[in-house]
Amino acid sequence: MSNILVIGGGTGSYTILRGLKRYTNNLTAIVSMFDSGGSTGRLRDELGYLPPGDVRNCILALAPEDNNTEILRSLLAYRFENGNGLSGHSMGNLLLTALKAITKDEVLAIEKLSKILGLKGRVIPVTIDNSNLCAELENGEIIRGETNIDIPKHDGNLKIKKLFLDPPANALIDAIEAIQNADKIIIGPGDLYSSLIANLSVKGIPEAIKSSKAKKIYVCNVMTKHGETTNYRASDFLKEIEKYLGENTIDVILCNTELGSEELLKKYVEEKSFPVEIDVENLTKVQLLAGDFLNKANIIRHDSMKLAKTIIDL
Amino acid sequence: MSNILVIGGGTGSYTILRGLKRYTNNLTAIVSMFDSGGSTGRLRDELGYLPPGDVRNCILALAPEDNNTEILRSLLAYRFENGNGLSGHSMGNLLLTALKAITKDEVLAIEKLSKILGLKGRVIPVTIDNSNLCAELENGEIIRGETNIDIPKHDGNLKIKKLFLDPPANALIDAIEAIQNADKIIIGPGDLYSSLIANLSVKGIPEAIKSSKAKKIYVCNVMTKHGETTNYRASDFLKEIEKYLGENTIDVILCNTELGSEELLKKYVEEKSFPVEIDVENLTKVQLLAGDFLNKANIIRHDSMKLAKTIIDL
Repeated sequence: MSNILVIGGGTGSYTILRGLKRYTNNLTAIVSMFDSGGSTGRLRDELGYLPPGDVRNCILALAPEDNNTEILRSLLAYRFENGNGLSGHSMGNLLLTALKAITKDEVLAIEKLSKILGLKGRVIPVTIDNSNLCAELENGEIIRGETNIDIPKHDGNLKIKKLFLDPPANALIDAIEAIQNADKIIIGPGDLYSSLIANLSVKGIPEAIKSSKAKKIYVCNVMTKHGETTNYRASDFLKEIEKYLGENTIDVILCNTELGSEELLKKYVEEKSFPVEIDVENLTKVQLLAGDFLNKANIIRHDSMKLAKTIIDL
Repeated sequence: MSNILVIGGGTGSYTILRGLKRYTNNLTAIVSMFDSGGSTGRLRDELGYLPPGDVRNCILALAPEDNNTEILRSLLAYRFENGNGLSGHSMGNLLLTALKAITKDEVLAIEKLSKILGLKGRVIPVTIDNSNLCAELENGEIIRGETNIDIPKHDGNLKIKKLFLDPPANALIDAIEAIQNADKIIIGPGDLYSSLIANLSVKGIPEAIKSSKAKKIYVCNVMTKHGETTNYRASDFLKEIEKYLGENTIDVILCNTELGSEELLKKYVEEKSFPVEIDVENLTKVQLLAGDFLNKANIIRHDSMKLAKTIIDL
């Protein structure tokens, strides 16, 4: 069975990993570690630990879904609603934080929690260096912090000129090795800058991907996101990825062709979010795999099983 | 193998259960639910849930001590040292609180956590009614809350005239049934009022113990506790227990004969705490089992294995 590696971190990784685990145990998730919001951000600020949120999502995605682990999965996903100081904290984040304190080792903490859940695969932080995601806009303004890039305060029409980490972060050796051993490297799905390029901004990661013999697959977003990818077509997404990865690195681009319902699309219009145009004419240097990868739900997103099946068959 | 039931809740229950589990899986812990201090008290105040602390201690005591559960046990015992609102919270308490929120059932939450750890025995709350432990002193003053009884604000020379629950609490049916099915009922070790009589103040518990065919064993304290059991001899402890349980209910009293080191005893003198005198002449109506039950450590307390061996052999 081929060795599949997914690079990302947010709900996109959660989606694709949940699908892939039905086909194989030979799975690795490389997870970005720059989240600065919510429960994760508070733990990071107050305890000085690395942000656990994206790690928790990937662990949850890779946990076997049987009766034995049901209650552990519920615990991992549970978020306190009340309690002075507890409210909003995710139990998964607290468990990772406690395990970090017990083991005094970020990576070991993740391995321990993975073992408790009998994980189908591995979750590896892209780095354990404490660093902040920064974006330089086309007007020269610098935005600091993943949350501020994700939900920009500017009017949204300014493009991101460059994403970088401050201070610079070095890839975890386990992440490099996993990339070297992979047969298929999947970049995405996920927010272009705050989830995907965040990983590619870590020293050692683009080099490892480029030199890897694996098939490199990029899963393009279904919708544009105002302030991050306004007006981006599929080729713009790819161009940005390859700006950090190196030209002609990606072998395959997966693009969704299915539109959501009119009613649903209207809601997205309100947020200035539109279906990503597949500009075939500009995608000549990669294999384009266009098809229905849409989940029929009340939000527009990729479908776990449709993505997984296509990637397994590649 | 005989069915052993331990009534208590605090570190005393932890001590005896850790020893007993080496001999049998046929173990039940009935746990008092009136703790009002620390992490437990905060969760109780802020979330309105029953206090998880003593339950956590008993679960920890009954968890198998092998490599597979090592990390789970560490998590259960872990206490956050930093983090606004998190500091001082025990992970075991947070897990029980989250499980209560997920299952919407206090008893089921305990069963789920027990199952995750592969517990050697059962932990049953004495009641799920939300109630406060109160003490009436001999001068008529009423003290409310377990913590205030445990660490009294008065000068410590006033005796507790009566312990009661406000509002009154009814025993959980599972607790009654476990008492009915027990072959040996162990009351103690533990703080006389705040751990032991607290359980006996729950409606239905004394009646169930009295009518049970089990051998009833009371483990007397090693040291007196200023403000709770000042100047108490073994017979005074027993008399207090039987005031709530009914006369001549206890079959066997276990009394420790071994003194701690002089150096250690000096420290206890500072806290006005002294070895409990075994006044044999007043213990004629019970079987007295006097012997070395002391743990040779830097605090004076019962030894897990010495207690367990004696109880198994009874």
